[in-house]
Amino acid sequence: MFDLVIVGGGPAGITAGIYAARKKLDTLLITEDFVGQTGMAFNIENYPGFKSIRGMDLITRMKEHLEEFDIQTEKDKVGRVKKKNGDFHLTTKKGGKFKSKAVIVATGRDPRPLEVPGEKEFMGKGVGYCVTCDGPLYSGKKVAVVGGGNCGLEAALELGAYTEHVYLLEICEESPGDELLQERVRQKENIDLLLRAKTKEIKGEKMVASLVYEDLEAGKEKEIEVAGVFIEVGYVPATGFLNDLVEFNERDEVKINARTNMTKTEGLFGAGDVTNIPYKQMVVAAGEGAKAALSAYKYLRDN
Amino acid sequence: MFDLVIVGGGPAGITAGIYAARKKLDTLLITEDFVGQTGMAFNIENYPGFKSIRGMDLITRMKEHLEEFDIQTEKDKVGRVKKKNGDFHLTTKKGGKFKSKAVIVATGRDPRPLEVPGEKEFMGKGVGYCVTCDGPLYSGKKVAVVGGGNCGLEAALELGAYTEHVYLLEICEESPGDELLQERVRQKENIDLLLRAKTKEIKGEKMVASLVYEDLEAGKEKEIEVAGVFIEVGYVPATGFLNDLVEFNERDEVKINARTNMTKTEGLFGAGDVTNIPYKQMVVAAGEGAKAALSAYKYLRDN
Repeated sequence: MFDLVIVGGGPAGITAGIYAARKKLDTLLITEDFVGQTGMAFNIENYPGFKSIRGMDLITRMKEHLEEFDIQTEKDKVGRVKKKNGDFHLTTKKGGKFKSKAVIVATGRDPRPLEVPGEKEFMGKGVGYCVTCDGPLYSGKKVAVVGGGNCGLEAALELGAYTEHVYLLEICEESPGDELLQERVRQKENIDLLLRAKTKEIKGEKMVASLVYEDLEAGKEKEIEVAGVFIEVGYVPATGFLNDLVEFNERDEVKINARTNMTKTEGLFGAGDVTNIPYKQMVVAAGEGAKAALSAYKYLRDN
Repeated sequence: MFDLVIVGGGPAGITAGIYAARKKLDTLLITEDFVGQTGMAFNIENYPGFKSIRGMDLITRMKEHLEEFDIQTEKDKVGRVKKKNGDFHLTTKKGGKFKSKAVIVATGRDPRPLEVPGEKEFMGKGVGYCVTCDGPLYSGKKVAVVGGGNCGLEAALELGAYTEHVYLLEICEESPGDELLQERVRQKENIDLLLRAKTKEIKGEKMVASLVYEDLEAGKEKEIEVAGVFIEVGYVPATGFLNDLVEFNERDEVKINARTNMTKTEGLFGAGDVTNIPYKQMVVAAGEGAKAALSAYKYLRDN
């Protein structure tokens, strides 16, 4: 029986772990890996204290920071959480069973699929969701990035450094991303930002060969030759294991009390991108992890 | 006329500055210095990414991070903020006058005085509020720390490394601080944790010579010989310049919407220790700074 189980190994989960360990809570952190959205980020320039750091390097530093403390970790994925007689019962994919008095859910988000013909068919054969992981395969080739928000802008910049040409397709009239990133994209000669461009299909034979989109301005379909397509159209919160213990908002995010991080279930807390906090940012997630752990500590002390 | 003025140069203010600059807001940050509570901290072990770092080093890294961006800073203290016709008018102690469309208050907190006889009289003559600043003066001597919370525990540990003896006085039955810190204090032979000890007076001639406290257990007064007394009994939010633009809670903290960081005045946001967020922690303050800046960006975009 643990005091606390933390589910997730991103900035929110790791920070919750650091804070829980400092409060001497008997804590287990369950995560498949310490990669997540942070590890996938090419370059992070907005986590205060680091002017510029690769995502994988920052998450590794955080993981090593966590390892300074007395905390157990389990490489696994939680399949189910139930509450019985005031205790939480967790079952993992590998068949592990754990009990705890409190739980923090910090599972973050998974990339959202675009859901166009060809996407599933060519997954791993030209279609990808992680530029940092797969981008270098397209060195010297033409690629497309679908989605013109911050993630898409960053993906395009990263790809622009070593591919021949990047088409960045955004369905809206303007990019919803940071002005600074937009400016950098505009300055790159080998990146085309295509606005009002709606991706219709990904085509090829064995591998991706082209992308078809509708130019909403001109009202006609266009086809561009590309060897790779990266989908950057947002995320889906990773909440499959939570069933009716929590309430979800319209984006399937876990509703929490913004001050205490408690969900609708006593003793069950949420932190970071999996929750309905309005901003999905590393430093915000880290702060939320600290809040959730301190609230869990208070909850355990008072119960 | 600025888009945004940020008042305060701690983790919340700096992070707000980084995020505002990345959104290309025309931003001014006003602060007397970049020290604050973080800079005063001897050793920080709970800011994710840094296993152990001196407070001054971390705040310097953050300041240098901020300086990477296009943002104006002013070394001054805000004396008054008013709102007229939708714009904010700020006046500083040095007589500076600034106008902006939005304001983020991130002024943090000042140490709370103990309010016992001798405290004011011996300020700077043995009485201090910043161990990192003044502690080394007492090398090889006996000192007292008043207040057994996290700040007091940390102050005692820091002083324990180079003073002859530390008396740590806590008025309650147990320390409200982290178990981990309590354990470390108990392991140090030259630190005495005195529980149920109520400080009554600080005595001396030209300089501090002793501290008188009531042993609430025994019901009698005791006097200990010390050359220095550090007061660690909490903080007062730095809100003097805000008048009726915001609401305060019972601890004089600025009330904010926990999701958006907006105060009761449209366009006026709060972030970090100056607000009524329940946890006063560096990483939480940094996350709150990011939230406030992103909310200010949305507010400016929509108005």
